Amino acid sequence: MTLGQPPQPGRAVVIGTGLIGGSVGMALRQRGWHVTGRDSDPERASKALKLGALDAIGDDPEAAITFVATPVRSVVDEVRAALAKGPGLVTDVGSVKQPLVAAVDAVARGRFVGGHPMAGSEQEGVEGAAPDLFQGATWVLTPTAETSAAAYAQVQQVVGSLGADVVALPPDQHDALVAVVSHVPHLTAATLMRLAASRGDEHQALLRLAAGGFRDMTRIAAGNPAIWPDICSENRQAIAEVLDDLIGALGQVREVVLGDDRSELLGVLEEARSARVNLPVHIGETDDLREVRVPVPDRPGVLAEVTTAATELGVNIIDLEIAHSAEGHRRGVLILLVEAGAVDRLRTGLADKGYFTSSRPVQ
Amino acid sequence: MTLGQPPQPGRAVVIGTGLIGGSVGMALRQRGWHVTGRDSDPERASKALKLGALDAIGDDPEAAITFVATPVRSVVDEVRAALAKGPGLVTDVGSVKQPLVAAVDAVARGRFVGGHPMAGSEQEGVEGAAPDLFQGATWVLTPTAETSAAAYAQVQQVVGSLGADVVALPPDQHDALVAVVSHVPHLTAATLMRLAASRGDEHQALLRLAAGGFRDMTRIAAGNPAIWPDICSENRQAIAEVLDDLIGALGQVREVVLGDDRSELLGVLEEARSARVNLPVHIGETDDLREVRVPVPDRPGVLAEVTTAATELGVNIIDLEIAHSAEGHRRGVLILLVEAGAVDRLRTGLADKGYFTSSRPVQ
Repeated sequence: MTLGQPPQPGRAVVIGTGLIGGSVGMALRQRGWHVTGRDSDPERASKALKLGALDAIGDDPEAAITFVATPVRSVVDEVRAALAKGPGLVTDVGSVKQPLVAAVDAVARGRFVGGHPMAGSEQEGVEGAAPDLFQGATWVLTPTAETSAAAYAQVQQVVGSLGADVVALPPDQHDALVAVVSHVPHLTAATLMRLAASRGDEHQALLRLAAGGFRDMTRIAAGNPAIWPDICSENRQAIAEVLDDLIGALGQVREVVLGDDRSELLGVLEEARSARVNLPVHIGETDDLREVRVPVPDRPGVLAEVTTAATELGVNIIDLEIAHSAEGHRRGVLILLVEAGAVDRLRTGLADKGYFTSSRPVQ
Repeated sequence: MTLGQPPQPGRAVVIGTGLIGGSVGMALRQRGWHVTGRDSDPERASKALKLGALDAIGDDPEAAITFVATPVRSVVDEVRAALAKGPGLVTDVGSVKQPLVAAVDAVARGRFVGGHPMAGSEQEGVEGAAPDLFQGATWVLTPTAETSAAAYAQVQQVVGSLGADVVALPPDQHDALVAVVSHVPHLTAATLMRLAASRGDEHQALLRLAAGGFRDMTRIAAGNPAIWPDICSENRQAIAEVLDDLIGALGQVREVVLGDDRSELLGVLEEARSARVNLPVHIGETDDLREVRVPVPDRPGVLAEVTTAATELGVNIIDLEIAHSAEGHRRGVLILLVEAGAVDRLRTGLADKGYFTSSRPVQ
């Protein structure tokens, strides 16, 4: 495995061949992987085979990596089954991570890395799958103290080779954040749509007044609702907290509007505009890369600490490798591949956490 | 003026040459109109001239129709000035109608018809203007008891010739409806965006997690906030009522999520999905048209009553003409051009209101 190079393609398994699982299969096959897969609905698996998302239907105990892409409620069982079936790595694409990771970590012996690609939606079938679905998308990985650095490095490389920007977050933090940027926005879109639709007699005229802005805002409400009860159930505390914040903030906006406080309203909207305009887009590719080397003690949690620190610092880890020290088993070196412009930020941030790093051009 | 034919192009004025005014100018010129215009910012008017939105800068007392496309706060003054300047018709494109129409109606002697194209956004400058901006867009007109049927028919024909679907609504109903489909969604998008941006330390990671759904929902928050204090001020009662409804509905969703009531949540989301999927798109063109003739007493309010009844019935009035009876001044015939499939619905609905209609193929 050479840093910055795509991983050698091998054998992979995809469990659950919907939009995300099908797209993973297509993207892997395009890069030379042999992909076996199955689905609780055999017809869906046949369709995935026909559409080129799979080489074969079934299981593959020889697989180097298994992607569990089933609905949230089946993920734990499928991850456990995959871990039991062979020696390979296992990852998943579930929208809620903390309960799942907690339920799996104990039996995973470091071979499981939780994941969540922020792309497409789990709402459509394999018909919507595409090999470039993850190109430029953010793909969250949620390493914990139990996750082996080697396992993480390999999953990051495979996912990165599909075109995704990998972001590392602790599972509970992931769940709090997706409540803000995904779950509550979805519930809000549905609520706005119902509000508009419930206006009885005026319905016909009302909906003809819905211009592009309203259509944009409610688009996600058109998705298949079936996946949401599970997601909302698993993440209900975080969702309720964000809904509380949203309800409070809307109440404040109501006061500002009713009180005709124009300068306050302008301030509120300018703040929102500035934040929206600065919403990051896909992190551009650059050729100016550096290695940052982090000597680390071989104790649990270092990998999670270093990678999530990079995420908090806004540093994109393009690739990562773990090199064990020749001097013994107790120490190793994490080698992070990052953009040259991010090196100082990363090194300073890691120094604050007690890591003494070095940097060099890519070899 | 022949029913179903575009109106004869003549002279028009556009006051306020931003995105909407500029697009009106371009669309009119493309159809053979001579368009004069001005803007409180002379540079913006020059730009409009350069971009082909105007033939000349200034006023034109000979104009058959004046479009007032200034920010909401200047509309009343500009409409009054245009009515005083010449004998032509005057319309506007303001986002809030009731206060404005009430302030103008008394002096308009039927020559003013309030309007609001549900297209683009008033947020961008003339650089964003395009002659096809209104193609397929809904354009609300707000006739009142004071509006002359002839004036309404002409404004409807001009606006219809720009490619818009015209919808007639009473001004106060328009304001209540745009609070639901435009003003509150805008405030909600801004609030969601601020909520996400305010999550302090997690900011960087959070915003990288924002996938397409969140981007769709918050897109309108990126627009220029400057127009909103006026809109929110003019329509604050309706906005506060809709915000109350939204806050209440979000509170219910919160209870459903916290209570882990999956079947209730699924029902809520399915209702929203069904409404979103059924959101009407542009009303298709059809060649199968019929005339519906409505003999009407020559008393105030008939035009507004008939056209807004059609809107409530979901009937698209493609064109409309007023024919005065040969028998005297006190009666006339409103001739409505509608799709064949809508004839029965319209005639039944009008019969319920005491209008006895006839229908015939287009002559």
